Amino acid sequence: MDNFNFCSPTEFVFGKGRENECGSFVKKYGGSKVLIHYGGGSAVRSGLLGRVKDSLAAQGVGFAELGGVQPNPRDTLVYKGIELCRAEGIDFILAVGGGSVIDSAKAIAAGTLYDGDFWDFYSGRKVEKALPLGVVLTIAAAGSEGSGDSVITKEDGLLKRGTGSDVLRSKFSVLDPELTQTLPAYQTACGATDIMAHVFERYFTNTKEVEITDRLCEAVLLTMVKETPRVITDPNNYEARANIMWAGMVAHNGLVGVGRSQDWNSHAIEHELSALYDCAHGAGLAVIMPAWMEFVHSHDVMRFCQMATRVFGCQMNYADPETTAMEGIQRFRAFLHSIGMPVNLSELGAKEEDIPLLVEKLGLGDGRTWGFVQLSAADVTEIYKLAAKAKA
Amino acid sequence: MDNFNFCSPTEFVFGKGRENECGSFVKKYGGSKVLIHYGGGSAVRSGLLGRVKDSLAAQGVGFAELGGVQPNPRDTLVYKGIELCRAEGIDFILAVGGGSVIDSAKAIAAGTLYDGDFWDFYSGRKVEKALPLGVVLTIAAAGSEGSGDSVITKEDGLLKRGTGSDVLRSKFSVLDPELTQTLPAYQTACGATDIMAHVFERYFTNTKEVEITDRLCEAVLLTMVKETPRVITDPNNYEARANIMWAGMVAHNGLVGVGRSQDWNSHAIEHELSALYDCAHGAGLAVIMPAWMEFVHSHDVMRFCQMATRVFGCQMNYADPETTAMEGIQRFRAFLHSIGMPVNLSELGAKEEDIPLLVEKLGLGDGRTWGFVQLSAADVTEIYKLAAKAKA
Repeated sequence: MDNFNFCSPTEFVFGKGRENECGSFVKKYGGSKVLIHYGGGSAVRSGLLGRVKDSLAAQGVGFAELGGVQPNPRDTLVYKGIELCRAEGIDFILAVGGGSVIDSAKAIAAGTLYDGDFWDFYSGRKVEKALPLGVVLTIAAAGSEGSGDSVITKEDGLLKRGTGSDVLRSKFSVLDPELTQTLPAYQTACGATDIMAHVFERYFTNTKEVEITDRLCEAVLLTMVKETPRVITDPNNYEARANIMWAGMVAHNGLVGVGRSQDWNSHAIEHELSALYDCAHGAGLAVIMPAWMEFVHSHDVMRFCQMATRVFGCQMNYADPETTAMEGIQRFRAFLHSIGMPVNLSELGAKEEDIPLLVEKLGLGDGRTWGFVQLSAADVTEIYKLAAKAKA
Repeated sequence: MDNFNFCSPTEFVFGKGRENECGSFVKKYGGSKVLIHYGGGSAVRSGLLGRVKDSLAAQGVGFAELGGVQPNPRDTLVYKGIELCRAEGIDFILAVGGGSVIDSAKAIAAGTLYDGDFWDFYSGRKVEKALPLGVVLTIAAAGSEGSGDSVITKEDGLLKRGTGSDVLRSKFSVLDPELTQTLPAYQTACGATDIMAHVFERYFTNTKEVEITDRLCEAVLLTMVKETPRVITDPNNYEARANIMWAGMVAHNGLVGVGRSQDWNSHAIEHELSALYDCAHGAGLAVIMPAWMEFVHSHDVMRFCQMATRVFGCQMNYADPETTAMEGIQRFRAFLHSIGMPVNLSELGAKEEDIPLLVEKLGLGDGRTWGFVQLSAADVTEIYKLAAKAKA
């Protein structure tokens, strides 16, 4: 196990109706004037935004609001949010939504206290300070409610880039599984795919003998394999929604990946798809992740066998481990298909002829990515090609 | 899943040589004059205490010291510590040791800021404030480095009682697996047993459909089953020590037990043994926990089957689940025996004729405990009797 520091100081406030307490949590963490940041009209129509405002008002906490966050949140709205926070003297940001809203809120939180262009933080500069942040989560997916990460898309050129810092971790995050019960099946499945990807990006490691984090990763994956089909067929299943919601946090607050090298190439390769086609991040991952697995599996066949047997219930073929590894990958793809996810580029609405453009936008040049297997532009091209021809 | 709040704000500083950074972490968390609290001479002889002092001095942090914490830490030393902190103007407590030292440090941290008798906190009063606390951990066992819990034994009458509060959570905890490599096999095994017990006390629940926490519990248990025998035969195995050390934290910072009812009766029943005989807590648990399991298993046979198959690799007997449940319990006992733990009262050095006294000291009267199965004094008597006659 490698040396590491781990700190997840967020207070998680989990369960039915807990969004009605968000005013007192804002107050507990020092907020007196809040920017409520949210996405489309569903938070308004469902009454959630009204309940959040009531909760703030009951605690005497003032607020301004900024809606309109899109999936794959844009820099343009972040600039607007920063301006608004400065003009209104905002001292706390409350994100009411999913990963896109939270990521946008984090960018505003960092940008408001920074003299330069906030995009610097998405171009390599470390975030050193940010306004405090709270979350009312409405979809189990990104894990942004427990992480210090944020991904923003630059409108000009559709560049999708990320940043990460412990100062971007939320002070508190309200996780009410009931809020996710109205999500359409497709979005639910996209979220589940994202959660599983967050675990796999940590699971495939070159660090040896990391049993505890391996097992914790598998705990989340096994939960997703069991619970996701239940919410697809029965959207109001509170218990299954609750298990998925907590699994989504555990998958991405850092715990299951400490002390081991990781691999975020699937995420990076997918980001080009969702940036170019504006498809759902989870749907893009459903296409890319198994293709990436096929491409890299020979680097460590036994690790893929471990996944196949422990997570997907394959029988180990001791005479030919390769077949077990490939069976595990194919079972993962079949699982994604069974919950309604696309399995190849065309089902996603992407075009095989765009592969050179996608690879170019990734900007590898003659270099390689870092990770489990360090990929060249030619390797990434192969992965996109595998993603083009995949079948469930 | 039940509603819950979860917050584990401790910064974990994990890996080789990290104790040399404790001075900068004390400073980061506001300490300027530290009480170094420790146990016996081993921390001195090993040079650890010297390295800790060097690290503090290098940061210009002053310190006083108080050693002499015994296993099953006593109230008498806590009173001494509180007096010392007040006299010396201590503003931060640094526990260098295992669970006993950390628990004693927590009691001092709470008691120093309290006008009354600190024992009030171990008699039902909630801890509201405490001096900030840091940890340099030397044994993987109690999980006190990540928890807000503390257990102290009152010298007068050998009453062993606990308290818990989020304000008692450590600001930072240094976990260097190398520091545990010199531990004798017996203490290592006691620690491993304690870690597994912390998980089992959460695993046996009456809350239904808690797959994510079930799987997280099993992740820790599977790790312990794999890694513990390795460190018993090869004490210097860094990787196995590292896996166990992180598993010990995960087992007890609260994560694996959120949103579900728990059962701490094995711990309570054991505490009377270690209070009366001053035996190691882990050794007492090795005797009590399987006996408790035997006594309560019929309350939820399928949950014991889940443990048997998922953790101990039993084949499910679908025609007679009871046999699988009992096989799982017996495999757990055999595992404990294999790592050198006692399996019955006499191997522990306890006397069957003391059972009435042990039961009386638990103070149940005509009442019942709370938990997975609510136990009467007669039930506890039966569990001690099962513990008396157990065989590996």
